[in-house]
Amino acid sequence: MNLQSDIAMDARPDTSAATHGDDNTLDFRSDNTAGAHPAILEAVVDAYRTGPLSSYGDDPLTARVVQRLRTAFGHETLLAYPVATGTAANALALSCLTPPWGVIYCHPAAHVQVDEAGAPELFSGGAKLQPVDGPAGKIDPDALAAVLAQDVKGVVHHPQPAAISITQATECGASYTPDEVRALSALARRHGLALHMDGARLGNALAHLGCTPASVTWQAGVDVLSFGATKNGALGAEAVVFFDPARAAEFEFRRKRGGHLFSKMRLLSAQLDAYLENDLWLANARHANDMAARLEAGLSPLNSVRLLYPRQANELFVALPDAIAERLRAAGAKFYPWPSDRPGEHAWRFVTSFATTPAQVARVLAVAGGRDA
Amino acid sequence: MNLQSDIAMDARPDTSAATHGDDNTLDFRSDNTAGAHPAILEAVVDAYRTGPLSSYGDDPLTARVVQRLRTAFGHETLLAYPVATGTAANALALSCLTPPWGVIYCHPAAHVQVDEAGAPELFSGGAKLQPVDGPAGKIDPDALAAVLAQDVKGVVHHPQPAAISITQATECGASYTPDEVRALSALARRHGLALHMDGARLGNALAHLGCTPASVTWQAGVDVLSFGATKNGALGAEAVVFFDPARAAEFEFRRKRGGHLFSKMRLLSAQLDAYLENDLWLANARHANDMAARLEAGLSPLNSVRLLYPRQANELFVALPDAIAERLRAAGAKFYPWPSDRPGEHAWRFVTSFATTPAQVARVLAVAGGRDA
Amino acid sequence: MNLQSDIAMDARPDTSAATHGDDNTLDFRSDNTAGAHPAILEAVVDAYRTGPLSSYGDDPLTARVVQRLRTAFGHETLLAYPVATGTAANALALSCLTPPWGVIYCHPAAHVQVDEAGAPELFSGGAKLQPVDGPAGKIDPDALAAVLAQDVKGVVHHPQPAAISITQATECGASYTPDEVRALSALARRHGLALHMDGARLGNALAHLGCTPASVTWQAGVDVLSFGATKNGALGAEAVVFFDPARAAEFEFRRKRGGHLFSKMRLLSAQLDAYLENDLWLANARHANDMAARLEAGLSPLNSVRLLYPRQANELFVALPDAIAERLRAAGAKFYPWPSDRPGEHAWRFVTSFATTPAQVARVLAVAGGRDA
Amino acid sequence: MNLQSDIAMDARPDTSAATHGDDNTLDFRSDNTAGAHPAILEAVVDAYRTGPLSSYGDDPLTARVVQRLRTAFGHETLLAYPVATGTAANALALSCLTPPWGVIYCHPAAHVQVDEAGAPELFSGGAKLQPVDGPAGKIDPDALAAVLAQDVKGVVHHPQPAAISITQATECGASYTPDEVRALSALARRHGLALHMDGARLGNALAHLGCTPASVTWQAGVDVLSFGATKNGALGAEAVVFFDPARAAEFEFRRKRGGHLFSKMRLLSAQLDAYLENDLWLANARHANDMAARLEAGLSPLNSVRLLYPRQANELFVALPDAIAERLRAAGAKFYPWPSDRPGEHAWRFVTSFATTPAQVARVLAVAGGRDA
Repeated sequence: MNLQSDIAMDARPDTSAATHGDDNTLDFRSDNTAGAHPAILEAVVDAYRTGPLSSYGDDPLTARVVQRLRTAFGHETLLAYPVATGTAANALALSCLTPPWGVIYCHPAAHVQVDEAGAPELFSGGAKLQPVDGPAGKIDPDALAAVLAQDVKGVVHHPQPAAISITQATECGASYTPDEVRALSALARRHGLALHMDGARLGNALAHLGCTPASVTWQAGVDVLSFGATKNGALGAEAVVFFDPARAAEFEFRRKRGGHLFSKMRLLSAQLDAYLENDLWLANARHANDMAARLEAGLSPLNSVRLLYPRQANELFVALPDAIAERLRAAGAKFYPWPSDRPGEHAWRFVTSFATTPAQVARVLAVAGGRDA
Repeated sequence: MNLQSDIAMDARPDTSAATHGDDNTLDFRSDNTAGAHPAILEAVVDAYRTGPLSSYGDDPLTARVVQRLRTAFGHETLLAYPVATGTAANALALSCLTPPWGVIYCHPAAHVQVDEAGAPELFSGGAKLQPVDGPAGKIDPDALAAVLAQDVKGVVHHPQPAAISITQATECGASYTPDEVRALSALARRHGLALHMDGARLGNALAHLGCTPASVTWQAGVDVLSFGATKNGALGAEAVVFFDPARAAEFEFRRKRGGHLFSKMRLLSAQLDAYLENDLWLANARHANDMAARLEAGLSPLNSVRLLYPRQANELFVALPDAIAERLRAAGAKFYPWPSDRPGEHAWRFVTSFATTPAQVARVLAVAGGRDA
Repeated sequence: MNLQSDIAMDARPDTSAATHGDDNTLDFRSDNTAGAHPAILEAVVDAYRTGPLSSYGDDPLTARVVQRLRTAFGHETLLAYPVATGTAANALALSCLTPPWGVIYCHPAAHVQVDEAGAPELFSGGAKLQPVDGPAGKIDPDALAAVLAQDVKGVVHHPQPAAISITQATECGASYTPDEVRALSALARRHGLALHMDGARLGNALAHLGCTPASVTWQAGVDVLSFGATKNGALGAEAVVFFDPARAAEFEFRRKRGGHLFSKMRLLSAQLDAYLENDLWLANARHANDMAARLEAGLSPLNSVRLLYPRQANELFVALPDAIAERLRAAGAKFYPWPSDRPGEHAWRFVTSFATTPAQVARVLAVAGGRDA
Repeated sequence: MNLQSDIAMDARPDTSAATHGDDNTLDFRSDNTAGAHPAILEAVVDAYRTGPLSSYGDDPLTARVVQRLRTAFGHETLLAYPVATGTAANALALSCLTPPWGVIYCHPAAHVQVDEAGAPELFSGGAKLQPVDGPAGKIDPDALAAVLAQDVKGVVHHPQPAAISITQATECGASYTPDEVRALSALARRHGLALHMDGARLGNALAHLGCTPASVTWQAGVDVLSFGATKNGALGAEAVVFFDPARAAEFEFRRKRGGHLFSKMRLLSAQLDAYLENDLWLANARHANDMAARLEAGLSPLNSVRLLYPRQANELFVALPDAIAERLRAAGAKFYPWPSDRPGEHAWRFVTSFATTPAQVARVLAVAGGRDA
């Protein structure tokens, strides 16, 4: 399978006329093309109107974010550190879990492997990412068990197994169930590895699974979580959450050293605070998932339309006949190609967000169905 | 001289009661404790209300920032890249200017040397920062010339001279004149080095010097500039500006790899756009300098008050009698200690910002002068 | 397939009685358990009896090594640099071929991937090794072409394809033909990648192929070669050979920075000089191959003995019935296990060297055949 | 003071006719231009004639080296690891003592600072070397105490003090007394730092001090020692000695990852074994010191000859009138320039070794004294 990541696709210059501003009513390229949820925007404004505030996170807003996360995850001693990007969250988290000569097991399609331009390697001092495949972006525990059985622990010639990194929901839009996470954390425990979860779309996974945040993270054995907000309504904010406080010992030095310690931390904390308040994040995610579900419901019955993976979050990966794809583009819809396993088949990715409206979805379905709106 | 950086001081937990919110009317700890200028805040809000926008900087707002910088610096081909923190700006800029075995010459008090927890070393792959001293935070060109005369170029045993990094205005609140910058860039040219300027407080230096941005940067030989906005009214934004586009060849990979490429780039670009519009940045800086000048005018005549360095930006470094310092603290003023060369003398740093009001300054002077307000 | 490298096996403490000195007449664990060829030992002694010699490679012995390599490879402008270990040769070579955010394609069983404890990552500043599979340790060009077709060039999110590294002879004892190398170098050219060859056992491959050193290296498109001597009669020496001098620009700094520049360079150069003189290296390799061929001829006809890969160098990978393996061990033979694809089958690796004698081989065959000698 | 290191000088191409072989009877450029002591050469030959031997250090020769070091240093639990170069020994040792964001304090003239092309930075992942000056290459404990008093421990903005590295004997040919080492180790303990000693010329320091190896190393607070043999009669060998075994936990991975784990470890161990046997190392060092003492005795009474530093090992740093320097060069003597503090004065460095003969010294003195031999 040829991998084309969403980030890569986002990075290509967009030369179409209808790129910017309100013309982009049918933008399904990514959940990071959306703006920000008004409540989060408002929180940022408020935070900057309060006048002076201690820098670098020593402020009550940041403290409140930690408390909200403790409540959301039902974990009284977790530690959480705001950073601005998902790549920074992942790379900094992983750097705390591996020696420079360590190995981090991840899916071949994982963001950390494909879309971070070597950030995990940089921040860890050279750790090796070793891909272990599985369906729909999920690591197959049997495949991983086979790799781990190679018994290289303590042999100085070999990079040393150190951590497993999974993405929830995966880059292919699937969600690990708590049992699936537990299968991997059991392997991790057996082999003395840490378990990291890239939760860029965690909210979307939870909205699909209907389980608590705790049940699919620390209760299922996750040690460190990249808690994503940027794709789900924030302006640009993430938090690195350590369920095992001991693993956080070096984090603050690594964050500062990486240039990721904000002096005006309130910029990040205000976003996270509003993101968590009243479970806005879960509402945003549910909405995005609902919009994706509608898309799925409307597209999948059409002739020659095939889902590549089960839709379990806010992303839909569909093979479409060229005629449908062309009609959609002609109508101004934006969406990216996705590799298909089947020769001759063209597949596409549609991503919804908190900002996707039912009207936008309806229009896509109308156009796809050949019923011009 | 014992160095105590402002960042270090900011990082100490603030346990005083009057830490947060509107109670901090006399907060002179740093220019990053202030909020953000309303125009910049408003620009961020507007940017997020426009609906979808291409990610990663491929948007007109970011393009406009580059154009504004070209206009502000009178340089038609400069390249500029938004990042979120000063440490990231400096470390990423320097990483483009040195091989991993290179040497970067800087002042012993330089932010890159003291306050970045090894970020330049991380991003450059191990380059060595070599301090060269001088008064008031400015590198002494004769001292630098002596070091560079050591002729280690091309000798494989030695780390290779690669770049000079100066801070404008310096960490001691002084400003390099264009001639002073030229003296250092002449040395740089002679020895094949690049010249980097950490412009975290560039606006304040320009407000003092009264010269154009171009005259003290690229026209004086600066190759790459960390253009700071966070300390001067933004929420959290900086730009790395390459006056020599060739030196920027690797920047975008390094930025992404460092986790510093924002998907919702508008968060940074909106700030920089408003920061540059109508020269807001220069107005903010002039205001901050004026407030500092008033502080200077009011404090320096008092008995036993001594300026450690000439005030040439928005920072005042004064030795105060303990009685004055205590009165100020009792009145709720916040300011940090600064090392003094003279035994028995206690010195302090006062930093003003765009948000400092004449009333706040007046109160400080009244308290300092023993006239309780 | 579970990979067990030879190095890993060597690293396990050898607790058998007959480990050391002359008792090890049946030691087929590796070609680095052998001593050194007398001519090479003598050359080292001579080199140290000449009295003072300029340090760091500025001596005629080192110059002569470069000249001998130019003659051996029929390449008048190659540059060559002695280092002491194969890991250093590979990691330093690769560090010259990739940016820190680069990707190096190699076989999953490659020494650089499995047995260097992250050395390529360290020396390159974080480049990613991406495994591409193929039979008997050879990269399958079609699999590599598929990976390279992913078109990530210039997209900042992705680690950038930079180099291909092949091992000749492979870790599974096979030899790439010149055509096979050309197939990979054609891919490299098409995609702008460099081609590196790990020639730890190059002599053995040449002895098998019967072709010239040039024909399977630079004439087939190899840019940089780790020219191995340690496994083939030297005490401890390798050379990094750049067929494209331009690629060597940074090598000497990287070598020194890696602690791999010997002050008494003659220690390495004397070995390489004698190794190349009168084609001793090819004679040593031919001998080792012959001994392996005899082993193959004697073992393969036995019942239930199966070669895992074609023997094309000095290593034999055989599945043996347990009874044979036990008899061999009881007779004091040393050899390492090797993973077999077939359940229930136990396989082993036998490595011969310049020091393996026909008598040793004959004894092994006698014992294996049940004819106690 | 302009620093010109000996290594840099060694690296300049030697274009004089009498460079090589037995013509170099008056070669005082460095102690690494000498050959090797016959006993050590013989030991290497013997080691390679014993036939097969387990690789990677799992052999009795290596075990014996560790035992000899334990005896020599009177320390029953030290751990020791052979490596091939002094740069590797230093950089690997330091990498075990500092986090990537750490600070290592060393003298401005220290080999680790000036002559390792960034190796400590590479192996540590970016630690910062911070020079602290003092006379004759020795760190001034008061200057160091002042730096350490800056109290940056635990403040995330600052690189974290981690280790002190001293060279014994220093790069200026002086020797720390046990009390002087203790003064620095006391500082180290107080501030939680490790103390590393670069003992490239340890034997020469001991020969001067007349104290036991233990008294000026671990008994004086040294944690890790780079035990040098290359400059004192070996072909190319050093050992990293950990007096505190706990600090060695990562060493073997770091050594392998650095490409410094020799498969045919006997090459290094044989040298170290013979180097330590019957205290050959101390005899070699005493001899070298004696030769330097004779040089000192003969040169210092001459007019306008001034020692730059007290001679306390095997190096003599003298200011000579140009006429004397020219006479010496004309007679074929080789020696390097050294920076002098005094304007107009030209100074030179003379290094003796185990191989320097009384006749060579006598000839130099004759020529210097104007009495042509």
